[in-house]
Amino acid sequence: MKAALWYKKNDIRIEETKEPKLNKGQVKIKVKWAGICGSDVHEYTSGPFVIPTKTPHPLTKDIAPVVMGHEFSGEVVEIGEGVTKFKIGDRVVGEPQIVCGKCNSCKSGKYNLCPSIACIGFSGNSGGGFSEYAVVNEDFTYKIPQSVSYEEAALTEPLTVALHSTRRANFKAGQTALVLGAGPIGLATIDCLKASGAKLVIVLQRKSIRQEYAKKAGADYVFDPNEVNIPFEVRKLTESIGVDVAFETTGAQIGFDTGIDSIKPDGTLVITSLWESPIKFNPNSILFTEKTILGTLGYRHEFPMTLALLKDGRIEGSKYITKKIFLDDIVEEGFKTLIGPHRKKHLKILVTPDKSLI
Amino acid sequence: MKAALWYKKNDIRIEETKEPKLNKGQVKIKVKWAGICGSDVHEYTSGPFVIPTKTPHPLTKDIAPVVMGHEFSGEVVEIGEGVTKFKIGDRVVGEPQIVCGKCNSCKSGKYNLCPSIACIGFSGNSGGGFSEYAVVNEDFTYKIPQSVSYEEAALTEPLTVALHSTRRANFKAGQTALVLGAGPIGLATIDCLKASGAKLVIVLQRKSIRQEYAKKAGADYVFDPNEVNIPFEVRKLTESIGVDVAFETTGAQIGFDTGIDSIKPDGTLVITSLWESPIKFNPNSILFTEKTILGTLGYRHEFPMTLALLKDGRIEGSKYITKKIFLDDIVEEGFKTLIGPHRKKHLKILVTPDKSLI
Ligand SMILES: [Zn+2]
Ligand SMILES: [Zn+2]
Ligand SMILES: [Zn+2]
Ligand SMILES: [Zn+2]
Repeated sequence: MKAALWYKKNDIRIEETKEPKLNKGQVKIKVKWAGICGSDVHEYTSGPFVIPTKTPHPLTKDIAPVVMGHEFSGEVVEIGEGVTKFKIGDRVVGEPQIVCGKCNSCKSGKYNLCPSIACIGFSGNSGGGFSEYAVVNEDFTYKIPQSVSYEEAALTEPLTVALHSTRRANFKAGQTALVLGAGPIGLATIDCLKASGAKLVIVLQRKSIRQEYAKKAGADYVFDPNEVNIPFEVRKLTESIGVDVAFETTGAQIGFDTGIDSIKPDGTLVITSLWESPIKFNPNSILFTEKTILGTLGYRHEFPMTLALLKDGRIEGSKYITKKIFLDDIVEEGFKTLIGPHRKKHLKILVTPDKSLI
Repeated sequence: MKAALWYKKNDIRIEETKEPKLNKGQVKIKVKWAGICGSDVHEYTSGPFVIPTKTPHPLTKDIAPVVMGHEFSGEVVEIGEGVTKFKIGDRVVGEPQIVCGKCNSCKSGKYNLCPSIACIGFSGNSGGGFSEYAVVNEDFTYKIPQSVSYEEAALTEPLTVALHSTRRANFKAGQTALVLGAGPIGLATIDCLKASGAKLVIVLQRKSIRQEYAKKAGADYVFDPNEVNIPFEVRKLTESIGVDVAFETTGAQIGFDTGIDSIKPDGTLVITSLWESPIKFNPNSILFTEKTILGTLGYRHEFPMTLALLKDGRIEGSKYITKKIFLDDIVEEGFKTLIGPHRKKHLKILVTPDKSLI
């Protein structure tokens, strides 16, 4: 089959590779659409980060070159031995996480924290979103509701990252939030907060097209930190109290500091972003106010929740799609666009291995 | 009445001052015993921190010089108008927090986070532990169980600081913990963890008499970070998982880092300590493992819980008392001992204004 294979940094090739083997309890999915993610770009420009290059991944036993693409929708074309929930022709999304099932995290249901976790699209051996076929365990495959298109369904994965972060924060209807940064994850967070009944969503975003995207995603106020003192504006909008929760998606000191300063006493700062270097932190800033800082990683059990939000229109997935391209063009039209001068315009570029869909 | 008054840094005087006025809903307590706290020493050597020196405190309307002492037990000698729960002669402890009752934190029951909070022993106008009398609101006064001595009861306040921190961490019976530092707060934390059914309590403490104190407080293992790799030892003792919760009481980078490294995925680091300067922190250290860092400050609603633990012997308060002195000697025998060469030997120095008790 045709696939986009990560060989090394700055070296992704479109090549013929063998179809993934369908094991017991798995379904084989013919990929319709797959999104290019920030972490794909990261592996392309500066990897390897999670792609195994020296020793095979303990769960997949595979090593680079690996098929990329972890945000995908498709059609079931083959079912493995023992599969009961799916039949050929089903429209599905695959959750890309592959876990050991035996560790303390897996056994307590927090499988996203499995220390030997693998991911389709990075760890090899299952095909992936940027190939013609992927194989996924039945338990990590979910039916797409009738009213949701394959294109929208390909957004399930990144939206679920955001949904999980709001659930980690224990965010509840009627609460208030500050979202730091309106890139793809920040926008998905705004969307999930609104879908969860947020009373007020304030966004930190420097002047760019992203300010408009934030408004479209449902932000009530968008502030540029170069123009206003955001913790001060937050207090004006929250009866001097501060927001219940802030979501840090910038990976920058200013995002962290603004988040801590803007949450109420007993409030929570959720760390969603990756960090390139340590920051300065005075723990007194959470001591005198009993604030909480917590990390969020991926998702668990939440794909069906996101699909429900897409189904009833509480999240409108199509607004994220800024470009649709053919697999053969993924490097020139996809990766290079996302690192090029117009990258801020783009939210999600979708890729298909099926020329008939373009 | 006689009192120890904080005038300024390095200037605490024993003087006659006027008795505090008894208001509606308050009781007047004749002090029996009061503990000297690390924050008292801090105000003495490097204050003012919370003592009002420039403008009167908004709630007490008072300003330095103020009576010190916030950890005290005594006898009710007078009751204000409308008081129904106490009578003259009752043995009591006073909770030193004075709050506005009107802010969002107060109204949601988290009165320890009241932005205008005052504290008897720092904010003036109520007498204090280091004087003959203190006045306390009836709702912040608690009866001492029969079997608990006045001396032990004077430990209610510092023990409640530790108890609150374990409750902030949502610590449950059968869980495991690491306590960073075995000073007075660290030891009280060990005690509260054991009283809460901890399965395993590991302690970081450099070589000193405090290692023995930690063992006496119930620590299962005490490690010196100069001798062993503590996160590694923690994993050996927890089936490679890490502890559920760590309590940072050192205020030092090594305590913070060791705490983060030693908790399990989804574990919690509680910040109890004060920090003199910012530290280095890489948020990735809590991102990939969904760890939580939270601050804890004082206590709320928890004095009766601590008194119950002292009553049934789950916490043995007397082991904390390393010296008992008369109020007149508080500077020479109290404060100077706690900053002197033998300070590590001392846990709690109790002070009485009543010569007949010595
Ligand atoms: Zn992704
Ligand atoms: Zn696992
Ligand atoms: Zn104290
Ligand atoms: Zn208040």
